[in-house]
This record gives sequence, C-alpha cells and structure tokens, in this order.
Amino acid sequence: MRNILVGQSGGPTAAINASLYGVIQEGKAHPEQVGHIYGMVHGIEGFLQGRYLDLKEELSEEELELLKITPAAYLGSCRYMLPEDLSAPIYPAIFEKLGELKVGGFFYIGGNDSMDTVSKLSRYGARIGSEIRFIGIPKTVDNDLMEIDHTPGYGSAAKYVAGTVREIVLDASVYHKKSVTIVELMGRHAGWLTAASVLARKQAGDDPVLIYLPEVAFDMEAFAAELERALAKRPCVVVCVSEGIHDASGRFICEYGDQAQVDGFGHKMLTGCGKVLEHFVRERLGVKVRSVELNVSQRCSGMLMSATDLKEADMAGRKGVRAALEGETGVMVAFRRAESGPYELHYETVDVDRVCNREKVFPAEWIEGLGDDIGPGFIDYVRPLIAGQVAHPMEDGVPLYLYRRR
Amino acid sequence: MRNILVGQSGGPTAAINASLYGVIQEGKAHPEQVGHIYGMVHGIEGFLQGRYLDLKEELSEEELELLKITPAAYLGSCRYMLPEDLSAPIYPAIFEKLGELKVGGFFYIGGNDSMDTVSKLSRYGARIGSEIRFIGIPKTVDNDLMEIDHTPGYGSAAKYVAGTVREIVLDASVYHKKSVTIVELMGRHAGWLTAASVLARKQAGDDPVLIYLPEVAFDMEAFAAELERALAKRPCVVVCVSEGIHDASGRFICEYGDQAQVDGFGHKMLTGCGKVLEHFVRERLGVKVRSVELNVSQRCSGMLMSATDLKEADMAGRKGVRAALEGETGVMVAFRRAESGPYELHYETVDVDRVCNREKVFPAEWIEGLGDDIGPGFIDYVRPLIAGQVAHPMEDGVPLYLYRRR
Repeated sequence: MRNILVGQSGGPTAAINASLYGVIQEGKAHPEQVGHIYGMVHGIEGFLQGRYLDLKEELSEEELELLKITPAAYLGSCRYMLPEDLSAPIYPAIFEKLGELKVGGFFYIGGNDSMDTVSKLSRYGARIGSEIRFIGIPKTVDNDLMEIDHTPGYGSAAKYVAGTVREIVLDASVYHKKSVTIVELMGRHAGWLTAASVLARKQAGDDPVLIYLPEVAFDMEAFAAELERALAKRPCVVVCVSEGIHDASGRFICEYGDQAQVDGFGHKMLTGCGKVLEHFVRERLGVKVRSVELNVSQRCSGMLMSATDLKEADMAGRKGVRAALEGETGVMVAFRRAESGPYELHYETVDVDRVCNREKVFPAEWIEGLGDDIGPGFIDYVRPLIAGQVAHPMEDGVPLYLYRRR
Repeated sequence: MRNILVGQSGGPTAAINASLYGVIQEGKAHPEQVGHIYGMVHGIEGFLQGRYLDLKEELSEEELELLKITPAAYLGSCRYMLPEDLSAPIYPAIFEKLGELKVGGFFYIGGNDSMDTVSKLSRYGARIGSEIRFIGIPKTVDNDLMEIDHTPGYGSAAKYVAGTVREIVLDASVYHKKSVTIVELMGRHAGWLTAASVLARKQAGDDPVLIYLPEVAFDMEAFAAELERALAKRPCVVVCVSEGIHDASGRFICEYGDQAQVDGFGHKMLTGCGKVLEHFVRERLGVKVRSVELNVSQRCSGMLMSATDLKEADMAGRKGVRAALEGETGVMVAFRRAESGPYELHYETVDVDRVCNREKVFPAEWIEGLGDDIGPGFIDYVRPLIAGQVAHPMEDGVPLYLYRRR
C-alpha cells in the first residue's frame, strides 16, 4: 500500500492517541506493505500547509507506549470542513500532496465532522480513479456517532464523570445545612456524558438525585418542584445537567442568562446553564447553592482512564489499517456488541456516509422519572465501557505524558 | 485520659480523613488510657445538637483503611465560630456535654478558624480548672497556617493542580490557532495552590507561562502586555490565576464583573475572576479565549492524592493523641522540616494562639518575573510534598470511598 498518512481532528479525548498508537503499530507490523507512516500535524488543515511528521522516525518504542496513555491529541487537531463542491480546487491540491508522499492509505481519527472529511476525500478519490484508501477511525467523548455501539474516548470520559461526580457528592455532603450543587457536564445535543453521572451513586437514592439530558425539554418550574421535593427529604442535593439543556421551545437554558457565541463550525458555544440554574435556585428557593462546571478535564484527563476504552481505541486504529490493506475505502471502523452473554465487542466497518453529519441521541427508553433520572438499561450498557484502570508513569510526582517536539 | 472526642471543621480536603484515621488508630493503640473514641458529626455545631458517633463501634479495621483514602470529611464539617466572650452560656453547655461523655481529650481537625475553637475551649477549660486536653490537628488545602512548614491536605491539592493543569495545557495545545486559556484556582488571600501550577511545566518556558497570585497586585494593562508578548512567541498561552487576585487598590478582579457575595464567616465569596479576564482578553486582544475554574475538585479529588501528604496527615492525628496523653493542651500539631539534607519532617506542637485567625502568605522571594512567575525556591519546597501515589480500590469501575451511615 506504500506509505500511510494519519491525522487527528476535532476535540481532544483521553483515547485518541491510543488509536494513533494502533495505526502506527499495525502499520509497522506490515513492513512489506507499509513504508513510511506520516502524521498530519493539526489535521488536514496543517497537512495542506505542509506540516507532517515521519512517525516511525519520530517515536521510539518507549515513546509509543507513553503515547498510548497520553490524553489530548499528540499530532494536534483542527476543526476544518472541506467544501461540499467536489470540484473545488482544494481537492486536486490535497491529492497532489498525497501523491508527493506516495500515500496509499489515509486514516482520520475523529467524530462526525471528521467522517465528513473521509467521505468527501473518498468520493473525490473515486471520481478521479485514485487508489488511495480513506478510512475513518471513530473518536469522541460525546458518544454520538451513528452505526457504532459506542465511541472510543467515551468510556474514559464517562469514568471520569462518574468518579468526579462521586467526589463532588462527598464534598457537597460535609455540611449539615440545606444546599444544592449543580454540576454542568459536556453534551450539546446528546446526553451520554451527563447520563454517566448516574454511576456516581453507590446505591439507589444517592446523589445525584436529579439528572437532566438535552434529549428532554427542560422546564424551570418542574425543576424547582422536584428540587423542593428532594430537599424535603435530605439536606444536600446534587443535580447534574448537560450544557445543552433547553426548554420546550428549543431555547437553551444558558441563553436565559448570558449571550451565546458561535464556534468555527457555526455550532453554538454553550456555557453557563449551571450558572443560570444556580441563580434561579438561589432566588426561588433561598438555599445555599453553587454550580460546578467540569469543563475540559472531562475530555483530557488521564487520571481515570478506562483500560477497556484504551484497548478498544487501539484496536480501532489497528482494524482501520487492516481494512485499508484489504482494499476497503470510504468506511469507518465500528464496534458491534454481542447481543447476549458477557460483554464482547466485534469490529467491523460501515459506510462513512451513514455516520457523517449525523448524531446519535440518548435513547428515550433509558430516561426515567419525570425525565430527570437514568434507568438500569443505560447502566448495563455503560458499565463494561468504564472497566479497568490504567497505571500512569509519574515524573517528580506529576503524571508523565508525551509531548510533540517543537 | 478516659474517652476522646474528635471532630472535623472547615472545608473538605483529600487528607482530612487520614488525620481522623490517625486519631482513631492512636487512640486504639492506648486501650488503658483511652476508652471510647467519639466523633462529632458536623463538628462542634453538630456536637452541640447531640450528634456524635462511637467510632470504635462504627468502623471496622477494613473500613478504617478505606477511611484513610476517602476525600472530603467523613464526620461532616461545620463553619461555626464560638463567641469571643468566654462568659457566654455556650461554654458551660459544651463542657457539660463533654462531662457527660467523660471526654478527656478533644481533637479538632481544621484550619485557622478551627484553631480558634481549640484556643477558646482550652482557655475556658483553664479558667474552670478542667482537665480536658484540647488539641488542634492542622488541615487546609490553602497551606496558609502559621507555625507549620506546610499543612496536611495541601500536598494532595497541589499534586491535583499540577496534574490537571498539565492536562489542560495538553488540551489547549491541540489547535494551531492563537488561543488563551485562563485557569482559575483556589486561594482567596494566599497563592500556595495557584503556585503549584508551576509544576505542570515539563521544562522551563512551558505553559502555564503566566501565574498570578493574590500576594501581588494585579494590573490589567500589565497582564494584557505580558499576554501579547507571550502570544507573539507561541500559538497558545495558558494563564493560572488565584480566585482572590486584586488590583493595587485592593479591589478584587472578580468584582470588575459580577456582584460578590459573603459567606457565613463574613468572608467574601469569590468566584469568577477567570470569567472576568476571559471577557477582557476577548475584547482587548480579539483572540480565542476560554476560562476553566478547577473548583471543588482541587480539595476533594482522590484521583491524584499525595502518599506523602496522607502519611503526614495520619501522623498529625497520631501525634495529637500522643501530645494529649502527655498532658499537653491548647496546642496544634506542627511540622518542622529538617534544614538540610533530604526531605525529613519533625513533628512538634505549637501554642494554638500563634496559629488561629492568622494567615501565612506566599513568600515574596519565590515570586519572579513581573510578579507573574514562580521561582525555583518554591519548587524545591513543594516537590517532596506531592511525592508518592495512592492506589485506590475500585468498585464497578468507579473509585470506592467510605460513606457515613445515615
């Protein structure tokens, strides 16, 4: 297949480098078919500007092992959408660069926006009769990709959410006076990460007693009533909410307060529904209240990585290389869970067009209570994904991670 | 000494339960002198309302080991100041309750407000000729107690800050475009925790490139100039700030934005200087900017506990019991570091009146640059305090902690 080129795109995760590791190791395992293993620096955007690395030269075996457990995105990332029009001049420009590097396989590790890049490049490739194989490797803490049981990166993020919310519950329970703690979690449109906060409970009835996902319209009055009911039974109440919760009209709760902003993709940048609810609770109920936004640590913390997640992310990278070697293109590596028996995962490939630019929302049948609780169906689903710990090497008391040379 | 009574007061830390563990284990080690080991539930405030536990009955040896590595405050805490006037009726009320339980030793684990409680009770005890011994066990993530090299709880919090800021730096560096990340850390008046962010650097010149403590007056214009200088050299800049930074007139930076609130002790409740600076940077420099508030996880996370901190917190509890058995009262257990040679700690006791209601600020000689950097003197000081990892038992993929029975 000659040389391969791999890139990372979209937001960081704890497991995206494990997929990069998998691509590199699988590439190295086929020396007769794979020559150089190039890495795009800052995704397709950086590659277009001529920034790439020769990863076999760059990384020793020891560094590769450290890469696997380093969060964020070693190669750097981008948020860059290729034009819809395949006759745009950027396509021949990209293929010229791919030709210069004698690239036979192109691997892009990312979420649904990144799969759009794989789709467009593979369609353009087919149009011009290119033999380059374009493979998507799934990655997102949001777990919102179609055609896959779950996404690499989600298990570690869910484990971090579960552990951190459990600690915040401990913290919230130290004082005797009535108090409310609102924890704002990532999730613009899909509540997968927020739902993982249910794992913080040691037993049924524990905090967080109220969990709100963006899949259910949020009603301020119903929230106040549920909170009062909970406060009547216990001194402190912990509430977990997705950043993207909105009312029945579609208006985001964060917009009740501040102004909202828009990122490079035209996505609304949501922050602050926790703060909005904090002010609301203080005014309405007159109790002590605080809000905590877990923020970027949900996606970049290495402290509570899931060993299962890292193993599967690694395998996703390896399976992507194998699919390319077998001649596949325009596909994403996917996971299918065995339908019965203990947790077992089957790796397959799916047409990338069935994945890109779509979002998998949290199933309605796993939402319980008055739309403010998570049921056992989700717990059975998520429990295997957070299994297993990852030991981190330390350096002077601080976790040791791998940095790209400047 | 008959029975002993132990309580926890003030904010949670990762190590406060290790001190409780030390008190219990040392008490159990002297069965001829120590009978029951009672625990105040919610500190002196809960004790006054009759809430206490018999800890030898309550906790098995296995639960005691789990207690040691459980963050927050197992017994519950309070923020409660005794009146200055020792002729107030609350004092005989407390001593009557202590008499009913045949308490010979009173141990209070807390910060400088808690040492005030120890001071007042020991002075009242002396006035009425009581033989009860009153001992303070130091605890605070803020590291702001006088007469002690460092406080139990600080090492784990500093390690958490160092590790988490290192991960946020990784996260911040994935995109190629110019960006600023502002990390807001705990510290109203003392910059100890924020200074620990310097440990996130792998080598000199790494992010966080700017670190601002409340010990130095913060100047918005100088900040903008330094930030521009840093951005001219690198695409992304991470800035760490204490929540309590203020300008030369003493006005808190968080007050530049929102309204400030006051807690039960009349302390200003500071939040939001990160948000204020985020808006300032966006308007002034026009670059991509975000702010991250590490919030309560700094004090309650068990994920990156310092083994050294836990060991010393345990010892502080044990030394407190030994001091009481030797007849001391009105003292706090303190740490003195050997002045030369490898890190070694000596345990002693100090008059609690030299500790209470005072704050130890961060030394000026360890602040460098234009008041925006931390020097090697601090790094030498703090490095031993974050040494060593603590392994946590897991339960279904989530850290297992000890909960008080309801």
